[in-house]
Amino acid sequence: MAFNSLILRLELVHSKVNFGDVASTISHAGGDITSIDVIRPGQDSSVRDITVHVAEVAEASLIESLKLLAGVQLINVSDRTFLAHLGGKISIRPNLPIKNRDDLSRVYTPGVARVCTAIHENPKKAYSLTIKRNTVAVVTDGTAVLGLGDIGPHAAAPVMEGKAMLFKQLAGVDAFPICLDTKDTEEIIRTIKAISPIFGGINLEDISSPRCFEIETRLAEELDIPVFHDDQHGTAVVVIAGLLNALKVVGKRIENVRVVVNGIGAAGVSICKMLLAAGVSRLVPVDRDGAIVRGGTYQYPMWQWLADQPQVESQSGTLKDVIADADVFIGVSRGNLLDASDVQRMAADSIVFAMANPQPEIAPEEAIPHVRVFATGRSDYPNQINNVLVFPGIFRGALDCRARHINEPMKLAAARAIASVVSERELNEQYIIPSIFNEQVVTEVRKSVIEAAILTGTARRIPPDFR
Amino acid sequence: MAFNSLILRLELVHSKVNFGDVASTISHAGGDITSIDVIRPGQDSSVRDITVHVAEVAEASLIESLKLLAGVQLINVSDRTFLAHLGGKISIRPNLPIKNRDDLSRVYTPGVARVCTAIHENPKKAYSLTIKRNTVAVVTDGTAVLGLGDIGPHAAAPVMEGKAMLFKQLAGVDAFPICLDTKDTEEIIRTIKAISPIFGGINLEDISSPRCFEIETRLAEELDIPVFHDDQHGTAVVVIAGLLNALKVVGKRIENVRVVVNGIGAAGVSICKMLLAAGVSRLVPVDRDGAIVRGGTYQYPMWQWLADQPQVESQSGTLKDVIADADVFIGVSRGNLLDASDVQRMAADSIVFAMANPQPEIAPEEAIPHVRVFATGRSDYPNQINNVLVFPGIFRGALDCRARHINEPMKLAAARAIASVVSERELNEQYIIPSIFNEQVVTEVRKSVIEAAILTGTARRIPPDFR
Repeated sequence: MAFNSLILRLELVHSKVNFGDVASTISHAGGDITSIDVIRPGQDSSVRDITVHVAEVAEASLIESLKLLAGVQLINVSDRTFLAHLGGKISIRPNLPIKNRDDLSRVYTPGVARVCTAIHENPKKAYSLTIKRNTVAVVTDGTAVLGLGDIGPHAAAPVMEGKAMLFKQLAGVDAFPICLDTKDTEEIIRTIKAISPIFGGINLEDISSPRCFEIETRLAEELDIPVFHDDQHGTAVVVIAGLLNALKVVGKRIENVRVVVNGIGAAGVSICKMLLAAGVSRLVPVDRDGAIVRGGTYQYPMWQWLADQPQVESQSGTLKDVIADADVFIGVSRGNLLDASDVQRMAADSIVFAMANPQPEIAPEEAIPHVRVFATGRSDYPNQINNVLVFPGIFRGALDCRARHINEPMKLAAARAIASVVSERELNEQYIIPSIFNEQVVTEVRKSVIEAAILTGTARRIPPDFR
Repeated sequence: MAFNSLILRLELVHSKVNFGDVASTISHAGGDITSIDVIRPGQDSSVRDITVHVAEVAEASLIESLKLLAGVQLINVSDRTFLAHLGGKISIRPNLPIKNRDDLSRVYTPGVARVCTAIHENPKKAYSLTIKRNTVAVVTDGTAVLGLGDIGPHAAAPVMEGKAMLFKQLAGVDAFPICLDTKDTEEIIRTIKAISPIFGGINLEDISSPRCFEIETRLAEELDIPVFHDDQHGTAVVVIAGLLNALKVVGKRIENVRVVVNGIGAAGVSICKMLLAAGVSRLVPVDRDGAIVRGGTYQYPMWQWLADQPQVESQSGTLKDVIADADVFIGVSRGNLLDASDVQRMAADSIVFAMANPQPEIAPEEAIPHVRVFATGRSDYPNQINNVLVFPGIFRGALDCRARHINEPMKLAAARAIASVVSERELNEQYIIPSIFNEQVVTEVRKSVIEAAILTGTARRIPPDFR
């Protein structure tokens, strides 16, 4: 259920109404008062801002019931979410002030000419003398934004700005949103290549499948800075992290479990690949037409790739067929595909990650009684599988060692690092994944990613703390 | 002459040398000590950082003479200019912190979905709910950077970052550098169009002529946000500002003066157009082959356009021919094309703007005795014609009124506003242009630009202070 925070500015006429009346009206209408500010006190009347947490569906009736209350005038309703976005959520900050002509001549003309010449003579110096070493583009074409679909580049911007805030706050990475006014695969590739010189990395975001595969693959080949499609790999990394810990909780080994992955789009493909890399030997990828089976023939290259893997099972069937006896279910598909009877037929001590948004593949209330570990993409249940755990630390590491790519070993290292933040002592059915506010996450992910980058030869620099 | 600021870290052995010896060695070698910091004091020896202002040509011998001084060990030489650029000169700042899950749910998922939907339903809301309303792209392909030429996108970045600093500090505009890895006109146009949704304006920078004309013209036609090639129009606006005040000083009217413009490239074309718009009736554009004459036939469309204007003179000749009897010379070409005998042949009370970089068209020492008002692009002579006076205020105005374009009336209004900042009382031969640190400049330029945008119907919003 979606909740909003509203700020209600009310004028109360003291002879007709008291604050208790207002508070009980709000409560009865389903609102929870979280703060009160007196804006203008007065003898006969007063103006107050009342912040109210309320379910989206109850908003209109709450406002209506306040309007009906004698002695109350509703001056304004502000929405705290919209207020947070007003004017945009990031800005540019000069790293030093230009106080006088002397400063100006250093950061701009004529002094800057020597700095430009130094980079022209040795392009590597772009990493020390420009923002490149700490700057990532967050690039979208607005075709697959959250659960909203193809809403276009302007409407996608608030998500990209939010991501830029998280990059900075969690990992000190300077990220800038680029929202593309084209959906053409070749045009997107060309554009990103053309704007790449100022960036140290490219975070692709909310680009619809299957175009996202071609775009990421080609850019990774053709650019010498890391390219990472977060919807694919961010989700996959945190799923693997959660799974590693869930398997510890239930006492099973990754080599032995049978894993059903439902929804073989951007995230599903990357999850399957990482599961194989992590050692899964019995994999059942499922999409709308049922299980993708070993030896089958498929339209999409990624599905075909899966059908060619020896670890993929050869038995066909619907999702409801193949979930029987599965140890693990991972859903990145649609809401309400399963019910209690389906998860009851899974193997003992089953693990279910139902990550469809906003409705999980199975309602938590139906699943929880029958499974051992349950996780969703939502923040209102335990075990939130959230890719905010991944991208800040992955890019912090990749930038610090100037990695050419973010390769499979680096992603697997990141997953293990996230899992490791939950100690053996803390680990339980309700706590397999650390909080995104746990500062250890970025530190550990960065460290593991750099180690893997150095080992696989993709690092171009050994950071001082690794020397 | 180019000067650098060096920071010399020295260890002094007290038994062999005192600070006076060091100071006089530095002075004798042509260095000017501007600050001293004791890094490590000590009984027998001490370490100090000495900041020295020194001509570039004298740097090596200064360092050599310090090395020869007994009792002095030169630990390190840092260059203050390079230090100012280290790690880049701008960063991204979140406008509010994400302290807890509640904050996160407002600025990112799930709350952000409502904001995205609002923009999807009404794209104009991108101006209130994203960074678009205050964000400008500073775009270059690195082909005409300062006087350095085609040094490429990486080496151009320090200039673009410096420009972004100035945008923010002087006018509160958030500018982000985009350095393009392509020199193809069509590719540049396509790329800028593709990345335009997040930006409220496009500042083109250091793109070589003649491609810059096509790129700017096409983008201005095809985008609905203002596009401004600073090398063309920024220079032209500040030249017109300076000329308006210089004419006041010498007591001539713009309608009556004969103006020679030398160098008909990016800046020269825009200067000629603005001169005509400002009322000049006798114009002599000159390039390498001599005067561009009325009725002539020329290779470049811009030269042909000039040859078709009634105000352009029809008499051919070299620069040295046509400068005779000119009231005004404006050079945006190459150094040392003219000498004293040339400017002596100009009309009485002549005005010379010699803006070639780093060497002006005529050495200031040769020109000054023979002309009434002399200006250059350099900061070490009075009357610096600097386009830092222009772009911050122009974009502040254009963004605040959501102008579709930056049109000729807006540019002319900006020039008049810059000129107006120098009061009648202050105005004299040595002071025709305000300092870039004069805060009135941006205020006045913004105001005049908005007025002109409203009058010409290109403003899409009336800012609150204009209602």
